[in-house]
Amino acid sequence: MTLLRPTDVVLTGDRPTGPLHLGHYAGSLSTRLALQGRCQQTLLIADLQALTDNAGRPARVANHVLDVALDYLAVGIDPTRTTIALQSQLPALAELTMLYLNLVTVARLERNPTVRAEIELRGFARDVPAGFLCYPASQAADITGVRATLVPVGDDQLPMLEQTNEIVRRINRLADAELLPECRPLLTKTPRLPGIDGRKASKSLGNAISLTATPGEIRTLVHAMYTDPDHSRVSDPGRVEGNVVFAYLNAFDPDGEAVAELEAQYQRGGLGDVALKQRLEGVLETLIAPMRERRVDAERQRDHVREVLMEGTAVTRRRTQAVLDDVRRAFSLPDFSSP
Amino acid sequence: MTLLRPTDVVLTGDRPTGPLHLGHYAGSLSTRLALQGRCQQTLLIADLQALTDNAGRPARVANHVLDVALDYLAVGIDPTRTTIALQSQLPALAELTMLYLNLVTVARLERNPTVRAEIELRGFARDVPAGFLCYPASQAADITGVRATLVPVGDDQLPMLEQTNEIVRRINRLADAELLPECRPLLTKTPRLPGIDGRKASKSLGNAISLTATPGEIRTLVHAMYTDPDHSRVSDPGRVEGNVVFAYLNAFDPDGEAVAELEAQYQRGGLGDVALKQRLEGVLETLIAPMRERRVDAERQRDHVREVLMEGTAVTRRRTQAVLDDVRRAFSLPDFSSP
Repeated sequence: MTLLRPTDVVLTGDRPTGPLHLGHYAGSLSTRLALQGRCQQTLLIADLQALTDNAGRPARVANHVLDVALDYLAVGIDPTRTTIALQSQLPALAELTMLYLNLVTVARLERNPTVRAEIELRGFARDVPAGFLCYPASQAADITGVRATLVPVGDDQLPMLEQTNEIVRRINRLADAELLPECRPLLTKTPRLPGIDGRKASKSLGNAISLTATPGEIRTLVHAMYTDPDHSRVSDPGRVEGNVVFAYLNAFDPDGEAVAELEAQYQRGGLGDVALKQRLEGVLETLIAPMRERRVDAERQRDHVREVLMEGTAVTRRRTQAVLDDVRRAFSLPDFSSP
Repeated sequence: MTLLRPTDVVLTGDRPTGPLHLGHYAGSLSTRLALQGRCQQTLLIADLQALTDNAGRPARVANHVLDVALDYLAVGIDPTRTTIALQSQLPALAELTMLYLNLVTVARLERNPTVRAEIELRGFARDVPAGFLCYPASQAADITGVRATLVPVGDDQLPMLEQTNEIVRRINRLADAELLPECRPLLTKTPRLPGIDGRKASKSLGNAISLTATPGEIRTLVHAMYTDPDHSRVSDPGRVEGNVVFAYLNAFDPDGEAVAELEAQYQRGGLGDVALKQRLEGVLETLIAPMRERRVDAERQRDHVREVLMEGTAVTRRRTQAVLDDVRRAFSLPDFSSP
């Protein structure tokens, strides 16, 4: 178990390729809310990273930047306690990435299990964009750029942090000083929340529940959820594993004991899907209603949200620039002050 | 034949990994002198590129930056007519490189014949640093960053320009406008000048003649030059191919007809190495003496040279930043003005 230290600096972020959904909430947004105010925390809207596999459709990325910021505010991120920054506005990160790329071999990048899985997922084969293969170095720049010490991740992302720490050690050896901190993973408890059909939740599959779903949408999507296809009569025993309704109840129902009891009852037989889904519908409406409301408020003040993003980005620009200055010194690069 | 146009923008540069030598003069410095004043010309001291295969010894790179600038002034580069800039002080280039990396595949980089040859030369095998594999994108950033239209290169570098133009076309298609110009190669006439032992001239092999060689050094090095090992008596016929003395005479003797005559005589027999080497010694002393003098002057004003470099870098920083702004717009990236 990774314990939070008050001096911890947390970095997470999202690629702005679509609206955030309940999967993001269960997997990371809820963690960020829990961390908020307990340590320095930065959320990075990773528009440059999104371009590594969207270079042919950049507008898709640009259009979602503000949406992600709105989603942050909707779930309860408070910009006075959490910094929100836009990656493409932090030029120091590009310079850090270029420097870090000299410290990792192509073979090491290709061996990175996360990169391998992502390359396979996207069907790139040999046509992987160079920027995509290099993104562990870019992520190391993001993490070290704010001197993050704690990075909430799923276990599939652990190899990325390992690679970041390898780079950190190389830099520290080069500087002969502890210039950059190594980072620890904060493993998110919730296993990956499935889409309503049991497959990976994804905007493109249309199987995710958005953070701004209306009551009607919630009802429709919960109603369509995959449960146990062999559980045709209420009196039959039902399967809990792979049952999407239980996955969501486990993730979001505040009464864990009640859910455990329902699971037992379902497995014995005598509990119907309709009753279960009604419960989930209530749980989700309770969760989403305040987000929906805050989202509407935020939508009304888009200019203010843009300002919030610019301010957070300005703060982060200064932080990342200071780190770049240190790393440049480690590489014996001169410092010409801008005339 | 590539003809110079008055609107041409020329970019060349050097990796600051050691003092420049006569090979650089024959291969590129003389071309730059010929272009000087006839079009806009930038010389880039590529310290970041030098780090791609010197990450473990950055001081070696840093120590040679000013030396390269001094060498430029020594050969007659005039900073009022040619801009000298330092790569690591141009942050726009790192951002451009990161954006361009999204437009080239790993397979395409690995297919680049220049990159392949360079990887083999350095014995990297699978341990090639990612930054090294990516350097065609970085070079494309250098070239497009100043909107260069003409790039003096040896024919071994042609694949790099091809790859730059591929990126230019991708950007222009993305922008749906002719945002960036394609570049043409200016092929340097002189074949690669060998080292005094006939191998590739290189600082590490100690077989190159430096631009600041003293008369004594010139004498010693010319005396040690490889000629024709089978040409033991003056009366014997001698070989001109592979004869380093003739390679240097062809490169530097202003009297081409006389050299052609000497070649004929050497091949017939009756011309000794000693006489030839004396001629070359005179030719090189005439060439190098004014460089040596200017180098001494420049050495005395290192602060001034540093200022020259800072001014040229500042001009180039504005140019590259303007190009980056254009390319960012092509990628639909927003523009937060720095607060």
